[in-house]
Amino acid sequence: MPAPVRYFVTGGAGFLGSNLADALLAQGHEVVAYDNFSTGQREFLEQASRSDAFRLVEGDVLDVQRLGAAMKGCDFVFHLAANADIRFGLEHPRRDLEQNTIATFNVLEAMRNNGIRGIAFSSSAAALGEPSIVPTPEDCPVPVQTSLYGASKMACEGMISSYCEGFGFEGYVFRFVSLLGDRYPHGHVFDFVRELRRDPSRLRILGDGRQRKSYLHVQDCVEAMLHVVRLRTAREAPHGVQVYHLGCPEYVEVKDSARWICERLGLDPQLEYSGGQRGWVGDNPFVYLDVSKILATGWKPRHTIKQSILCTVDWLVANPWLLERR
Amino acid sequence: MPAPVRYFVTGGAGFLGSNLADALLAQGHEVVAYDNFSTGQREFLEQASRSDAFRLVEGDVLDVQRLGAAMKGCDFVFHLAANADIRFGLEHPRRDLEQNTIATFNVLEAMRNNGIRGIAFSSSAAALGEPSIVPTPEDCPVPVQTSLYGASKMACEGMISSYCEGFGFEGYVFRFVSLLGDRYPHGHVFDFVRELRRDPSRLRILGDGRQRKSYLHVQDCVEAMLHVVRLRTAREAPHGVQVYHLGCPEYVEVKDSARWICERLGLDPQLEYSGGQRGWVGDNPFVYLDVSKILATGWKPRHTIKQSILCTVDWLVANPWLLERR
Repeated sequence: MPAPVRYFVTGGAGFLGSNLADALLAQGHEVVAYDNFSTGQREFLEQASRSDAFRLVEGDVLDVQRLGAAMKGCDFVFHLAANADIRFGLEHPRRDLEQNTIATFNVLEAMRNNGIRGIAFSSSAAALGEPSIVPTPEDCPVPVQTSLYGASKMACEGMISSYCEGFGFEGYVFRFVSLLGDRYPHGHVFDFVRELRRDPSRLRILGDGRQRKSYLHVQDCVEAMLHVVRLRTAREAPHGVQVYHLGCPEYVEVKDSARWICERLGLDPQLEYSGGQRGWVGDNPFVYLDVSKILATGWKPRHTIKQSILCTVDWLVANPWLLERR
Repeated sequence: MPAPVRYFVTGGAGFLGSNLADALLAQGHEVVAYDNFSTGQREFLEQASRSDAFRLVEGDVLDVQRLGAAMKGCDFVFHLAANADIRFGLEHPRRDLEQNTIATFNVLEAMRNNGIRGIAFSSSAAALGEPSIVPTPEDCPVPVQTSLYGASKMACEGMISSYCEGFGFEGYVFRFVSLLGDRYPHGHVFDFVRELRRDPSRLRILGDGRQRKSYLHVQDCVEAMLHVVRLRTAREAPHGVQVYHLGCPEYVEVKDSARWICERLGLDPQLEYSGGQRGWVGDNPFVYLDVSKILATGWKPRHTIKQSILCTVDWLVANPWLLERR
């Protein structure tokens, strides 16, 4: 096992961040989690908090002073804090700019001030808009952005790349499909389970249900990121940016997902479709990333999409507090 | 001639903005120029100011209130205000974020608040980093950004696209090569002419002089933008974003440009090269856009690159105040 590294995880109390923190601690590393608990949950840190190698700093990525101070002494940054819900960009246009673009700039500047050069970043398939090539490789054509969320994620990617070029940073950009699994806090499985708890007789589905989407289990996502960052320790002083698409090498239709969720819950509701190709403005009806680049490194997902959906249903049923909290 | 339109031009006292304002006024339109005079020049507006159809509002694009009030009653926005000098991003990393990304968000929000849907935006070849395909078409692979300036321009493009998708905006994104011509305020011709005025015996050239670059005369650029925006009047309620590459269908080497400049000035200095493929960190050694899309609309440049360089030298020699001011 390599020497322990002190990782700084923004959004460390979030869905992905808390799962990553648990994995880093299990590998013998130190973790400083930074979170403002706007969507992060203290419950997600129960396991991490039992470790002496874990420290939580409550703070906002827009609070430059606090962010810089918290990062002091860390070796590598996982920047996961974000407005992660794509759907409400048009209701709050400033949110993606502030919490994603400006926040990422703040993280990069805090790193520079602290002499930290390594960053892994949670970008998104949404940063590619509605790509003309599916499955979509890392070097697909310049996207036409269709959501403020996707646009902000690409803006973040651009700043990270520029810091790699200009300041010798070492950047890992991961464009994810939607994640599933323990601590899953929003998205269609969340909505469907919550709706069915309220009224098991009917289920309203945004769009025509034919949207094709790929998903990835959060554990598989964590393993992929750590796998790539581990490869780095074998190389000498790498710098520059690397982009990886993370997802399952398959996709499902929303209506199939709805059927599996209903079956798992033992329900047979009336399915009602709002109609149209897209669930909302900016919804990409076909999200399917070409993941051959990450597969070629030796990583592969351990969960199929169906397994991930069923795990997520089981976790939500066992943790109704999250469904009720929102 | 179509009915007069009231155009709002951010950066209206700048190199491109003031030339555009003159052209719009000559076509019988109204112009509201908005500029903070950080790099804009009152002298550039001498001609425009003689027109009753011209109004200048002194203000900053970061001043949301003033921007929104100034835009009231306008029909279409040319958003040209920017930190336009790519070279100093690493010295002032916040500048491109603020003056380009956040400023563009402010412009989009001011438009939304004023019920204005049409925007033309001055993006840049630099938003494509160092493209793998040269000449570079509009739909080249997702760029790896190499400058904060380029990253910020792509961030702006993304927000504009998202506003087109989400709010029914009509966007025209123009990715320019470097512009030349009357009122040219910075860049290699400016530096060379200024240096040679100080010391005609030697000329220091950044890089090895083999950098290959395309350029475009500012008048040709203005005509291209107006040509595309005019096409719009023939269509019914267009929306969505269109991207055009603007440049000459040729390129020159920096050392050739240096030679032409010296010849035009009647000088024969010692040429000193700083060496290396790039003039500065983030300098793309081969800037050459594929302009077939804009050529197919019927526009074509009226100046070769050599003609543009010579015009620029002549204008700078006739306007030494600008060389001395900086």
